[in-house]
Amino acid sequence: MKKVAVIMGSDSDFPVVKGAITELKNFGVPFEAHVMSAHRTPALAAEFAENAEKNGFGVIIACAGKAAHLAGVLAGHTTLPVIGLPISASQLDGLDALLATVQMPSGIPVATVAINGANNAALLAVQMLALSDESLAKQLRDKKAAMIDGVLKKDAALQEQLAAL
Amino acid sequence: MKKVAVIMGSDSDFPVVKGAITELKNFGVPFEAHVMSAHRTPALAAEFAENAEKNGFGVIIACAGKAAHLAGVLAGHTTLPVIGLPISASQLDGLDALLATVQMPSGIPVATVAINGANNAALLAVQMLALSDESLAKQLRDKKAAMIDGVLKKDAALQEQLAAL
Amino acid sequence: MKKVAVIMGSDSDFPVVKGAITELKNFGVPFEAHVMSAHRTPALAAEFAENAEKNGFGVIIACAGKAAHLAGVLAGHTTLPVIGLPISASQLDGLDALLATVQMPSGIPVATVAINGANNAALLAVQMLALSDESLAKQLRDKKAAMIDGVLKKDAALQEQLAAL
Amino acid sequence: MKKVAVIMGSDSDFPVVKGAITELKNFGVPFEAHVMSAHRTPALAAEFAENAEKNGFGVIIACAGKAAHLAGVLAGHTTLPVIGLPISASQLDGLDALLATVQMPSGIPVATVAINGANNAALLAVQMLALSDESLAKQLRDKKAAMIDGVLKKDAALQEQLAAL
Amino acid sequence: MKKVAVIMGSDSDFPVVKGAITELKNFGVPFEAHVMSAHRTPALAAEFAENAEKNGFGVIIACAGKAAHLAGVLAGHTTLPVIGLPISASQLDGLDALLATVQMPSGIPVATVAINGANNAALLAVQMLALSDESLAKQLRDKKAAMIDGVLKKDAALQEQLAAL
Amino acid sequence: MKKVAVIMGSDSDFPVVKGAITELKNFGVPFEAHVMSAHRTPALAAEFAENAEKNGFGVIIACAGKAAHLAGVLAGHTTLPVIGLPISASQLDGLDALLATVQMPSGIPVATVAINGANNAALLAVQMLALSDESLAKQLRDKKAAMIDGVLKKDAALQEQLAAL
Amino acid sequence: MKKVAVIMGSDSDFPVVKGAITELKNFGVPFEAHVMSAHRTPALAAEFAENAEKNGFGVIIACAGKAAHLAGVLAGHTTLPVIGLPISASQLDGLDALLATVQMPSGIPVATVAINGANNAALLAVQMLALSDESLAKQLRDKKAAMIDGVLKKDAALQEQLAAL
Amino acid sequence: MKKVAVIMGSDSDFPVVKGAITELKNFGVPFEAHVMSAHRTPALAAEFAENAEKNGFGVIIACAGKAAHLAGVLAGHTTLPVIGLPISASQLDGLDALLATVQMPSGIPVATVAINGANNAALLAVQMLALSDESLAKQLRDKKAAMIDGVLKKDAALQEQLAAL
Repeated sequence: MKKVAVIMGSDSDFPVVKGAITELKNFGVPFEAHVMSAHRTPALAAEFAENAEKNGFGVIIACAGKAAHLAGVLAGHTTLPVIGLPISASQLDGLDALLATVQMPSGIPVATVAINGANNAALLAVQMLALSDESLAKQLRDKKAAMIDGVLKKDAALQEQLAAL
Repeated sequence: MKKVAVIMGSDSDFPVVKGAITELKNFGVPFEAHVMSAHRTPALAAEFAENAEKNGFGVIIACAGKAAHLAGVLAGHTTLPVIGLPISASQLDGLDALLATVQMPSGIPVATVAINGANNAALLAVQMLALSDESLAKQLRDKKAAMIDGVLKKDAALQEQLAAL
Repeated sequence: MKKVAVIMGSDSDFPVVKGAITELKNFGVPFEAHVMSAHRTPALAAEFAENAEKNGFGVIIACAGKAAHLAGVLAGHTTLPVIGLPISASQLDGLDALLATVQMPSGIPVATVAINGANNAALLAVQMLALSDESLAKQLRDKKAAMIDGVLKKDAALQEQLAAL
Repeated sequence: MKKVAVIMGSDSDFPVVKGAITELKNFGVPFEAHVMSAHRTPALAAEFAENAEKNGFGVIIACAGKAAHLAGVLAGHTTLPVIGLPISASQLDGLDALLATVQMPSGIPVATVAINGANNAALLAVQMLALSDESLAKQLRDKKAAMIDGVLKKDAALQEQLAAL
Repeated sequence: MKKVAVIMGSDSDFPVVKGAITELKNFGVPFEAHVMSAHRTPALAAEFAENAEKNGFGVIIACAGKAAHLAGVLAGHTTLPVIGLPISASQLDGLDALLATVQMPSGIPVATVAINGANNAALLAVQMLALSDESLAKQLRDKKAAMIDGVLKKDAALQEQLAAL
Repeated sequence: MKKVAVIMGSDSDFPVVKGAITELKNFGVPFEAHVMSAHRTPALAAEFAENAEKNGFGVIIACAGKAAHLAGVLAGHTTLPVIGLPISASQLDGLDALLATVQMPSGIPVATVAINGANNAALLAVQMLALSDESLAKQLRDKKAAMIDGVLKKDAALQEQLAAL
Repeated sequence: MKKVAVIMGSDSDFPVVKGAITELKNFGVPFEAHVMSAHRTPALAAEFAENAEKNGFGVIIACAGKAAHLAGVLAGHTTLPVIGLPISASQLDGLDALLATVQMPSGIPVATVAINGANNAALLAVQMLALSDESLAKQLRDKKAAMIDGVLKKDAALQEQLAAL
Repeated sequence: MKKVAVIMGSDSDFPVVKGAITELKNFGVPFEAHVMSAHRTPALAAEFAENAEKNGFGVIIACAGKAAHLAGVLAGHTTLPVIGLPISASQLDGLDALLATVQMPSGIPVATVAINGANNAALLAVQMLALSDESLAKQLRDKKAAMIDGVLKKDAALQEQLAAL
């Protein structure tokens, strides 16, 4: 199976990004995670993205805050799908990172998820890989079914809470 | 090859969405386009998304403006990757559609592109399909190389313009 | 009397939503409250809304945060009035939920109240039911009169506080 | 049947507000429309709202732009449901009117619809009246069904357009 | 000397509003402070504003949060200058109150100060009264001179802090 | 009577500012208008503000767009009340000018009116001068009464328009 | 004298960027202008920035719209000062470009000017070069003096306009 | 070497501004820091800026929050480059200070850095001075190289953390 790369612009993003890593592990999807900066280590970031496809990666998740350039810069160096995870890391609560990640110019898409939406970044990567991996696709369908159960249980718990009001 | 579904919430979105369709045609990717509304035809939308995988679709592009629920609603009914294209269709210039598309809750990702970024929505779909289609992947690499030529030509034209100032 | 449905997208919204439930209880209005998600349990949500009228509901209050689609999705499946209560549940402090709830396309209104304005969501539901229930209407007028007393008492308390400055 | 009051803060709002009036006419709902200002004719506005119930009104639609106080002020003088229609009438494109209409304090709800969403303001009023008027309720269900046809026709037209591309 | 009225929409605004009261006391300007709501006690608010001039008031300071209508409503009932103090009282950090206070329609100005800028609201009221009161004007000039001293002392303290670095 | 100074940061603001000048003329209030920039002619601006009181001015209206510093800078040099009129002069539609005008630090208030609200800037100046000029105060009350007539006429015109629908 | 590089992300930015080029020409500052994209020609952009210092450049002006990464990417490859000029090129009117340019992480500054503020980008570059070039510094002082004359002339013209009202 | 002036509008900004001072010290760049206000001590601020060049300053860093006028006002009085550091000091989290600092009118640039981006303000000043100081330029290149090492070490630490998951 192709690997997922999880690249974060700063190790201070790790507490959020961990949610993506946990999700990938749950699905048994092989991954690598790295601290790599569009600004502080631009040559490394460029090299990583350029070689990602031949190094066995299928999807890149790029996590960055503030003027979040990481996803866009990696996307400039590869034709693999790049998922952008905007991190809330400034006084502007991630709105800066969201706009800097999603408003990409024509020709270089970044698949952007919610601010701090680490789980969804991973799920989206799994959905992409599942397009050619029926076993992963089944896992996704199972997880979706389980979500229904989860909500039903929460509703049942709510009914008890209401009865006790 | 799996098909791409291009679903727009209103036919008034078509002038923007056309950019995605043209791009898909250029790549020779099979697609279907439909007007279908999360609010006006919710049953149809649900049915479409639930059957998309078995009907041969690989990716769904959902295009909507204002309180853009279409991408999220389709994503609730499928485990295929759903690409959200926020359309600028209100006094708020698409900021409402962007937030209503990208800020999805955990468990249901939507791969959001720029406001009115129809070309990128299509390119992202192609990138996803190319993960298991080397011919598409080559087309993407060729297009990326061609973009470099395009910029170089524009730079050459600029030099002439500057010389004439 | 017709019942009010209080539907919340996640049980994490309950601390806010409780304000609506308390208000409904104070008015003696029959209600049901459920956890039900536009994304995680879309079929249940659709079914609930489609049958709401015949199941004796008169008004639906939908509470959701982030890309809050719940109110709009329920409104797509019923002609009962749907009240949207945007919840502050993301880094964007509910602005995302507000826009995703209020900016509905023509044909499918959602009666939106303030971010986290749970009391007002309930009051609005009561006002709707009171249109054909004089006893409820009287309760509303009494409550309005009581609010005047409340303000007068707070003003009196302020005068004491000022005298002590 | 109870009447709907359509109150606009300025006659310059009429081109937008007309959409609400047309909708009410289509449903055969009796209505009155007035120019009345929370700031320029506050006594008239207060008097109108205080007597609205006894004068046979069931719902008030208040339309205003900029620091849109009209809906809130009317709501302060009545226990009828008040629908707020924020008008885009300033450099801020109606965002000011939206926030000034929807962010009401506890105790005084305003049922807010989208910026310039005049049709939906009227539909919401009809939904409220339909709670005790089965004939109106049937009209709403018929209109909802007709919307499905409308979308299907637009989709059919799109298929022709696509075939011709 | 004419009095200043300090009207707050809710007693929960008092911790902020207190700054205005302290400032007025420092200048020896007579004032009254009241809790009075544009929505909960509209008749009282209207009556207060209508009689303010003849009751000896020269300026009204209106303090409110959320959809802050208080300043505008009072201004609708008087030709005295009304100062609007937007209070940060919602998830939107006072941006709602600022826009709802400052974006007044033509004909009914509200002199708006910064979010939570209680001191400045009072100073502005004093500046208005000082137009016909040379003693107050002198106090304002003295305070302005004292501010220079205050900054100079802070700069001196900074120099010591820097020397110790 | 004390004069009003109308200072605009750029002559490109004149089409908006003219509304304030017309209003002042209507009230017969003496005024001077000047182009003067906080950035391009800071010494002139400082000198003007410092001498404004002794040169017979009672109120200063400062009109500026973008990073609108003019009102704040003038207020730093005088204890006269300064009215800030934010002008919509950039891509941000005056939101920049509004925040740069209203969010003044403690000690230096600026009485801010709506974006492009030139009429209200003048009216506010007149209200301040009217505190010690009963004739002006009467003019203000007359104008307020006339506004009621204006709205009543517009309502009458609306009734004709509705009858013709 | 060191050269100024004017790099624009797209030739569609030229109508705005031209203002910077004209300004540089007026000062007689040597410059080169290029179309070069952080996303479409990342290798060229990196190479340009890495060699800028040794190729005789002193300052780089980077002009880009939407998710404007150009300034930040160039800054990642050089220790020369980089001036970021956010271009209004999307539905968000340049707010996206502003945040994506200015909110840079610690270690990689970008000197950001106003949205579409091309003249100021050039002036800032000249100010930097003038730190070690007294002739340029004198030109800047002369231009500043000329700006005063310009404002005085506009004020004189205004006086004529006012006299004619 | 020319000195850097670090001017803060209020001593309450010092905890943020300290980051700039530390950075300047690390580079061995001579500097002076002062509390000086565009509003409270305008004459001092004007005098400081006017004499800055002849007093041996090369760059001015101006730090201010809210309606941050300090950078613009200083820039109005000098042709030295002025760096604006917007401080998060109000309910609006520094967005007000950012817009009030960056949106300068043509002719008076301010080199704006991120909200609270004190380190970058200092680095930008050093970059400007380094244009004519090869020793400083070398320090900047060394720091840039060290940043790469820093990221590599953080990546190595991350690998250990991941292994331990």
